[in-house]
Amino acid sequence: MTTTFEPGHSGFTETVARSFARQGFLALIGARLASVAPGRVSVELPFSERVGQQQGLFHGAVTGAVGDVAGGYAALTLMPEGIEVLTAEYKINLLRPALGSLLTATGEVIRAGKTMIVARIDVTVAGGRPSAAGAPPVLVAALQATYMRSAVTAGTS
Amino acid sequence: MTTTFEPGHSGFTETVARSFARQGFLALIGARLASVAPGRVSVELPFSERVGQQQGLFHGAVTGAVGDVAGGYAALTLMPEGIEVLTAEYKINLLRPALGSLLTATGEVIRAGKTMIVARIDVTVAGGRPSAAGAPPVLVAALQATYMRSAVTAGTS
Amino acid sequence: MTTTFEPGHSGFTETVARSFARQGFLALIGARLASVAPGRVSVELPFSERVGQQQGLFHGAVTGAVGDVAGGYAALTLMPEGIEVLTAEYKINLLRPALGSLLTATGEVIRAGKTMIVARIDVTVAGGRPSAAGAPPVLVAALQATYMRSAVTAGTS
Amino acid sequence: MTTTFEPGHSGFTETVARSFARQGFLALIGARLASVAPGRVSVELPFSERVGQQQGLFHGAVTGAVGDVAGGYAALTLMPEGIEVLTAEYKINLLRPALGSLLTATGEVIRAGKTMIVARIDVTVAGGRPSAAGAPPVLVAALQATYMRSAVTAGTS
Repeated sequence: MTTTFEPGHSGFTETVARSFARQGFLALIGARLASVAPGRVSVELPFSERVGQQQGLFHGAVTGAVGDVAGGYAALTLMPEGIEVLTAEYKINLLRPALGSLLTATGEVIRAGKTMIVARIDVTVAGGRPSAAGAPPVLVAALQATYMRSAVTAGTS
Repeated sequence: MTTTFEPGHSGFTETVARSFARQGFLALIGARLASVAPGRVSVELPFSERVGQQQGLFHGAVTGAVGDVAGGYAALTLMPEGIEVLTAEYKINLLRPALGSLLTATGEVIRAGKTMIVARIDVTVAGGRPSAAGAPPVLVAALQATYMRSAVTAGTS
Repeated sequence: MTTTFEPGHSGFTETVARSFARQGFLALIGARLASVAPGRVSVELPFSERVGQQQGLFHGAVTGAVGDVAGGYAALTLMPEGIEVLTAEYKINLLRPALGSLLTATGEVIRAGKTMIVARIDVTVAGGRPSAAGAPPVLVAALQATYMRSAVTAGTS
Repeated sequence: MTTTFEPGHSGFTETVARSFARQGFLALIGARLASVAPGRVSVELPFSERVGQQQGLFHGAVTGAVGDVAGGYAALTLMPEGIEVLTAEYKINLLRPALGSLLTATGEVIRAGKTMIVARIDVTVAGGRPSAAGAPPVLVAALQATYMRSAVTAGTS
């Protein structure tokens, strides 16, 4: 079931970009925003040694982190100005080895309640097999997450 | 319910240490093994800008990553030589702001089946409030995770 | 991402129906199969006092149970003859009060691996508000679940 | 980490018992309260055909339902008078076949926040093997769940 959402305020794209830029951990691993729409956000991460584990794969922990971030920003697009979201909990299934050159996490809100927002997130990897040029990205992880509305902490907006 | 487990082989401590050392992501963020026992492993992470988010807290994604790693190594202690474990899935609840100087994730196996191992993981943070010296660490996250037995990939052992 | 799956064997519809009929708990609460396709199964449950809680809603536990069953049968459609599936774990978010006359759980497999099958399940309720005749069913719960392949137990096939 | 909790009000035991008695689904399956303490509640369920599946085991769905109920009542013990709790989400791992004569679910709160309460729940089964009289109950499932505070719906108190 796909739902259409109204953005929380007209400047939601800038709000997401500003929040993303403030997170040192995301810069450290090389993540970037790929698309921002009401209730739907994609985050991309090119492969590098910083995000890999011993077999040349994206680390499962990185996969989870980027998935959680994509879901959280999908939720943030629906918030009024001055309201942030916090991750309350999430669940992730790691479905396949995350072998490839570009990881993309796309979060979609499935319920925006008064205090909690629930999202599902798909994480795909492209460029995994050189012989498979043009092949579609492969689903490597699936998340389901809950975010909580939160007043902005003083001094961080 | 606490269960006592037999180690998977006598060299389980070295197996865990060797695998830990091979993971670039763990070195990147500054994580280290704190203790290794059959079915129970602790991983520590001192605070740094690399693992923080905008408000001076451990990033939620880092909390999840270190929790998952602690559970996975707890499972690995019970495996026969030459068998690795892969994270199949986990669920995390973020319980409190992870504010402090040292994060510790302790994973405990609650079921070691033929193909799947299930663990619970507690993540605590110490040193959060300077005025509270000597106060016990605070529980900041709780995970429940499933790991799968897996033959070692050629060339990585 | 929608995936097309091959059925595990040509008699998958009968296999699902036969297994469903053997489960006393499903008969007790009044659940019935609504549709069976490779990798996708819907289960319906009309409201009754047996499945309700104090406020005239479907009980959350019933919602979870029917969701889990729909995902499990979606997995079963992909198994070879003589192989059953067991629920390893699931996670459920209860999104809205499950008020209405008919609950429908639709499970879709998102990954069919060698030992584990992962599905997402949507649970909707229709007929919740008499004034909203013709309104689409409302999403009341979302699940993500893992099932394990298992040889059939002797004497139950 | 075990935490000691203050009850939400002095009549918490009666509040739990009254709420339990109003739930038709729990009566239907034969569940009963076994113990009620601040932040900790046990619910018991004797085996019967109503809660079994084809192999003579407790149905996984029933295991999840009773686990969720135990966690919810553990949360309720900490609420002020007139406040109820709703299940927001839970995750369950089914660890072993639930074969036996008595299932017990024990929920313990691990975090009681302003809007959300998080609990872990252990589900055990006793009496599984006649030859093992006096053997300890076996852990068959583990849950981690989130509950939300909620004002009591008019007319149900």
